[in-house]
Amino acid sequence: MGSRRSPFDPVAHGLDKDFQLTNYTFTDPRGVGWKVPQKDLLKLLDEFKDDGGKSAEEMMLQRTEFGIGSDCSVKPLPHGGLCLVETTDFFYPLVDDPYVMGQIACANVLSDIYAMGVLECDNMLMLLGVPQRFSDKEREIIIPLMMRGFRDMANMAGTKVRGGQTVLNPWCTIGGTATSVCPGTSIVCPDNALVGDVLVLTKPLGTQIAITARQWLSIPEKKKKLNALITAEDVERAYQEAVYNMCKLNKISASLMATYNAHGATDITGFGILGHAENLAKCQKEEVSFAIHNLPVIARMQHIAKGYSEFKLLQGYSPETSGGLLIAFPREQAASYCKEMDRLGASAWIIGIVEKGNRTARVIDKPRVIEVNTNIT
Amino acid sequence: MGSRRSPFDPVAHGLDKDFQLTNYTFTDPRGVGWKVPQKDLLKLLDEFKDDGGKSAEEMMLQRTEFGIGSDCSVKPLPHGGLCLVETTDFFYPLVDDPYVMGQIACANVLSDIYAMGVLECDNMLMLLGVPQRFSDKEREIIIPLMMRGFRDMANMAGTKVRGGQTVLNPWCTIGGTATSVCPGTSIVCPDNALVGDVLVLTKPLGTQIAITARQWLSIPEKKKKLNALITAEDVERAYQEAVYNMCKLNKISASLMATYNAHGATDITGFGILGHAENLAKCQKEEVSFAIHNLPVIARMQHIAKGYSEFKLLQGYSPETSGGLLIAFPREQAASYCKEMDRLGASAWIIGIVEKGNRTARVIDKPRVIEVNTNIT
Repeated sequence: MGSRRSPFDPVAHGLDKDFQLTNYTFTDPRGVGWKVPQKDLLKLLDEFKDDGGKSAEEMMLQRTEFGIGSDCSVKPLPHGGLCLVETTDFFYPLVDDPYVMGQIACANVLSDIYAMGVLECDNMLMLLGVPQRFSDKEREIIIPLMMRGFRDMANMAGTKVRGGQTVLNPWCTIGGTATSVCPGTSIVCPDNALVGDVLVLTKPLGTQIAITARQWLSIPEKKKKLNALITAEDVERAYQEAVYNMCKLNKISASLMATYNAHGATDITGFGILGHAENLAKCQKEEVSFAIHNLPVIARMQHIAKGYSEFKLLQGYSPETSGGLLIAFPREQAASYCKEMDRLGASAWIIGIVEKGNRTARVIDKPRVIEVNTNIT
Repeated sequence: MGSRRSPFDPVAHGLDKDFQLTNYTFTDPRGVGWKVPQKDLLKLLDEFKDDGGKSAEEMMLQRTEFGIGSDCSVKPLPHGGLCLVETTDFFYPLVDDPYVMGQIACANVLSDIYAMGVLECDNMLMLLGVPQRFSDKEREIIIPLMMRGFRDMANMAGTKVRGGQTVLNPWCTIGGTATSVCPGTSIVCPDNALVGDVLVLTKPLGTQIAITARQWLSIPEKKKKLNALITAEDVERAYQEAVYNMCKLNKISASLMATYNAHGATDITGFGILGHAENLAKCQKEEVSFAIHNLPVIARMQHIAKGYSEFKLLQGYSPETSGGLLIAFPREQAASYCKEMDRLGASAWIIGIVEKGNRTARVIDKPRVIEVNTNIT
């Protein structure tokens, strides 16, 4: 699983020792403040939903398209059964290493197409907001590192960044678009979950808690309470595990979805496991609901969550960045999928079931927490 | 050509009378401060250019892709001669009417694919930055208006917004992506200009000067000097003409490019007519240069430009938003194109020539200014 990443050293790059990329964003220590609340977003998008006479399938796609499901847009093309699958996303810095931030942003953008079972991305565009307050030197050093991280991750995914847009902004932003032209038959529709299906998750939860905890280690008034719950070494381990996962493409997880007859999937990001499970439930064709029993969590992050009520980890609402895929499989195939993932050195946990219901999702009372220990040394 | 738009009335929408969308961006009165300087941008993009062994054609596309030509990315697909053509762009508010701002943003995003002669856009995604400082009410009123403007313009262009991303940001941003899957043969390559060709422009220059002048009318210390150069009525006319043009799709201009054998084109935006002409010249296959003799300018904007040295209008560097297409045609066809555009009620001016040279562009000393009077009443 590789070894620890050393922290980004601004001095080694000729920058001031106090330079921190994460200063160029919200100061909300939990890093969740930049998402437009989900209910407001849905209200804003409401008027797009009944945009002329659409077929039920188009309505489903429309729902999928607007972040309620997977945030991918799917448009059938008038060329031999091909579809245009696209997504866009952008982010504020959550780690101080600009190269790693670029990698995370790219992996997260691609995650949306992987959630549709689409493995080949034909093109990426990069969106960059360069902080106004950056000195010339900071701009010359930091921005190319972010761009390189983004580009290298795109190349790793077998695609290429061919364009984009760069503007000045008060905060730093990085993101982009991922586009695929693929046979419609290769898309895993998200809305086919059936009663009796099993829910699988492919990355542990708790990424944002790990990142926040590590930031708190350098804030004396935060550090004291934190250290009563967890050691600095455990925080560092959790942080390394979080970064490892955020940089990991969901491509392998996605590549086995069709093989094991996946009935639908979404990727876990800013609304937390339950927020995204709710969105996926909402778009189902059958009258089903999702019940989540198990929460795979980066080791010891549950202790932090228990000490700070603002992290709604056990309620399912702790935001993730570049999280795993949540996939509904027929029961037997779920087990085979997890076994195959394990064989490939990738992770996957059975976390819940699909039951009869009215398209909602819940985390059961007292879910079982699966502590995910890191192998990073 | 239609009638005047009334100014946006915040009170009629239940907002404070002092609400101004243009307050949620840079305070630089010329509105040009948010572009990363072109030379810095090129330096940043440098490392993307020699990204592995590319064919000459790919190199051309790569150059085109990174804003040096048209900011469109073009990727040949492994499906029957199809290409994926994509662009992305986003903007800060430059007019106070949120619906109009949405329209302008959408027209400007689409402009890049029109510059490649691509007329059908298969899909658009919308990118929104909602100002943190917006009250709930402001968010509920302003954002849907912007979204509606963007969507309506997309529909007018015969395409549809199927997804996007919305986050909070200090400033307001609106933009998006435009994607087309089209036969490679339908693309007008930008790099075929020949000695003897003629340069055509399809919208008048001076949009940002008009917008800025109108803002100055409400700033007493600015107004006095301005009024010595131009009447308030002329400013209002110019503003109306600017808004009309920024909201106008370049689709008709693009639809005739292939018919009249265009040798290359780009759209005019933030770097001004000369900045974009330089980019287009740089990517040419032949050893040619562009000489611009005529500058079609919104009526009386040249008087403002002469009074304020910061507007580099006559030097060719006054930034435009959602500007026209700059197209190189064989001489006879250029005249026919302009005639046909005129017949369709659209505008087009012959502004310069293609001569032997080393892929540069210039505005001649003392260019002729063509005063473009508005028909808006």
